[in-house]
Amino acid sequence: MTNDRELALELDRLVFHSWSAQSKRPTFAPAGGSGSWLWDHDGERYLDFSSQMVNVNIGHAHPRIVAAIAEQAAVLPTVAPSAANLARGRAAEAILRHAPAGMAQVFFTNGGADAIENAIRMARLHTGRDKVVSTYRSYHGNTGAAITATGDWRRIPNEYARGHVHVFGPFLYRSEFDASTAEEECRRALRHLERVIEAEGASSVAAILLETIPGTAGILVPPPGYLAGVREIADRHGIVLILDEVMAGFGRAGGWFAFDVVDDGAARPDLVTFAKGVNSGYVPVGGVIISEEIAATFADRVFPGGLTYSGHPLAAASIVASISAMEDERIVEHAAQIGAEVIGPALHELADRHPMIGEVRGAGVFWALDLVSDPETREPVAPSVVAAIKAACLERRLLVFTADNRVHVVPPCVVTADEVATALAILDDVLAAVAAA
Amino acid sequence: MTNDRELALELDRLVFHSWSAQSKRPTFAPAGGSGSWLWDHDGERYLDFSSQMVNVNIGHAHPRIVAAIAEQAAVLPTVAPSAANLARGRAAEAILRHAPAGMAQVFFTNGGADAIENAIRMARLHTGRDKVVSTYRSYHGNTGAAITATGDWRRIPNEYARGHVHVFGPFLYRSEFDASTAEEECRRALRHLERVIEAEGASSVAAILLETIPGTAGILVPPPGYLAGVREIADRHGIVLILDEVMAGFGRAGGWFAFDVVDDGAARPDLVTFAKGVNSGYVPVGGVIISEEIAATFADRVFPGGLTYSGHPLAAASIVASISAMEDERIVEHAAQIGAEVIGPALHELADRHPMIGEVRGAGVFWALDLVSDPETREPVAPSVVAAIKAACLERRLLVFTADNRVHVVPPCVVTADEVATALAILDDVLAAVAAA
Ligand SMILES: Cc1ncc(COP(=O)(O)O)c(C=O)c1O
Ligand SMILES: Cc1ncc(COP(=O)(O)O)c(C=O)c1O
Repeated sequence: MTNDRELALELDRLVFHSWSAQSKRPTFAPAGGSGSWLWDHDGERYLDFSSQMVNVNIGHAHPRIVAAIAEQAAVLPTVAPSAANLARGRAAEAILRHAPAGMAQVFFTNGGADAIENAIRMARLHTGRDKVVSTYRSYHGNTGAAITATGDWRRIPNEYARGHVHVFGPFLYRSEFDASTAEEECRRALRHLERVIEAEGASSVAAILLETIPGTAGILVPPPGYLAGVREIADRHGIVLILDEVMAGFGRAGGWFAFDVVDDGAARPDLVTFAKGVNSGYVPVGGVIISEEIAATFADRVFPGGLTYSGHPLAAASIVASISAMEDERIVEHAAQIGAEVIGPALHELADRHPMIGEVRGAGVFWALDLVSDPETREPVAPSVVAAIKAACLERRLLVFTADNRVHVVPPCVVTADEVATALAILDDVLAAVAAA
Repeated sequence: MTNDRELALELDRLVFHSWSAQSKRPTFAPAGGSGSWLWDHDGERYLDFSSQMVNVNIGHAHPRIVAAIAEQAAVLPTVAPSAANLARGRAAEAILRHAPAGMAQVFFTNGGADAIENAIRMARLHTGRDKVVSTYRSYHGNTGAAITATGDWRRIPNEYARGHVHVFGPFLYRSEFDASTAEEECRRALRHLERVIEAEGASSVAAILLETIPGTAGILVPPPGYLAGVREIADRHGIVLILDEVMAGFGRAGGWFAFDVVDDGAARPDLVTFAKGVNSGYVPVGGVIISEEIAATFADRVFPGGLTYSGHPLAAASIVASISAMEDERIVEHAAQIGAEVIGPALHELADRHPMIGEVRGAGVFWALDLVSDPETREPVAPSVVAAIKAACLERRLLVFTADNRVHVVPPCVVTADEVATALAILDDVLAAVAAA
């Protein structure tokens, strides 16, 4: 099989890679997978604590989804969005089964970015307003409106759209508000949000767009009361609240949606964007869950948005199979439990032994280690340190997700306690070795 | 099976549909398909001369692609974009096999819109300029930059990005330039394009973005010399030429790319966007083919764009199977031949008998009938006429694609002469009945 590995690396020169300089080429070529494991063409096995792009929530090659894909492909892989389609209707039904009361319909897209695009479009048309408020510590996708709503560095070279305003969200460990308690951080972040909305002109703001738990930005679980406070501000000013659950939803944070587990479900979004975990990315798909009120806006008015593959039957069949399997195998409950009982405690224990770990944050199978060169000043470690950790983990056959000065511990929801022990033992060694170097 | 039909229509109320008011619900629920045919849950068969969204080029449920999807799904349905992957490399190789000389790499996206987004991003970063010139008669997708580049009505409610400029392209039958010959239309359209570029400031223009053959806008085959002239203008001003082949590519116009068959291949794009026909939409996918020169810009510079499902293995496997099947079964050659020898002549013959057909335009399996209420003034027929034609065709179990005042005759590339005869006999009856009413 070594020839296949060489061929994969050789042909990769024809592939243009995202978010990177092209002269840096990959060396790892996964050939297959199952559950929390991937293997290469030589049969070498890797423990996947990245879930790839934090999206393979149900694990690799789950047989029920694989079977559903094969079955739907043989019958009718694709059909135009305008027709009715049974697989599509069933997928909408499965998603709405887990959505809050008051949600009426699902609009299907190809991924996260275009889910955000269409949620913003709905909010703008529903309110008749232009502006969208989102946070600096956020990522919402790479297309025109989604990348401009994004707050991190990826926005800057892509800023070609008007009407996007950014605020700071709550993040006590690196507070922008000089807060020293969660309560203080919450109150000041809410005041800041409302002040920006007032200063922008509340009647010009269509939407507040937030990741329920900002993911790539560092798994920033909001303090108690924050999302409820945002809902209250949105209501007071007639603003649509969009919660982006692309990364946090479908088991990742230990609930069907992260807003179910954060703030006791007080957030009540008007629009919910999803992708990734909805079918673990087996077939590209995303979408928007739409409230009755916003759906009603488009009852007799044409919605000016759409795409060739909206409600794709193959994607829909994989959603139905994935949600059913998650229900039957109680995978979301498992993610909550293993997070609370195994991963969380183990990471805190790891932090006790490694001063480099400044903070441990997370829930479910959605955890970040905030790495610092000095626990007092909380100075982030240099990018080279994170790169060294990632490379050493890969060497030891452990895949982790890294961003800025952080290691994200984000295995599939089906991860076992044994696999957690294996992974954290490797991470323990690696952190010690990198700290010593 | 009738219960499944009722269930499909019942569950459809949970689905939010694109480009439409939600109170208008679909009545047709396709359940399966093969080649140029679809069938509903009662086994009623429909001849598909729409190719759904003009994307099922290879026909429905082609066994080779179905098998490739099942096979790849069982092994490894998805993987992060950053790794190397054999299916992904093979897909890039298959696409580049048919691309013009000087094309180096492929960037994979989820569909057409985000292909355009990323092509525009590349052009802007490569040139260090902002503006993108595209035509009013165009459609490039529903995301932020793509919808603003789009020229048709769908742009207006979605215009939130700067740097997009629109021009009129050549369209002799409804000339914006008072031209009476193709040569005159070509010359005047080129002069108009260059004057707009000069007036916008040539050094601020990053890209000229054109559908090689504008599709939804009416299958507007450009006059001889136009694309070569555009290439010359782009070269003179250091502007990147992006040809959008999302609808026109992969057999639709009778070539692997439409620019191969229009203007004797003189167009030589710098970037090519594709989707739809590349795998007939069996798995959502799209992408950008990148010239050596532009790829080199990102050799050591980070490309600030990307998406979770870029280079998705399942999509990649379906591309490899689809392109191989098209090669082995000579499907592109068939599309060219049946267009030139059967569809084109038959449509011209139909036009001779129906004064409502003002013009027949097209190539390959990519044809439009421009319907007029008065052949002299070329006044377009009312939308209700087109709706009546579409409904009557559906009644007779024929699916056609309609837009504005046009019927588009766009069957799969594998359509047979018998199927063309069947479809055009129905259309003949329907046009006569609607004209009489
Ligand atoms: C919260 C969030 N929103 C949106 C996106 C964009 O999704 P996609 O990459 O499918 O476009 C991501 C991707 O990581 C995300 O994490
Ligand atoms: C020429 C062209 N470009 C782009 C698109 C957008 O593609 P998608 O619907 O996959 O986003 C289309 C869709 O019809 C198209 O015809």
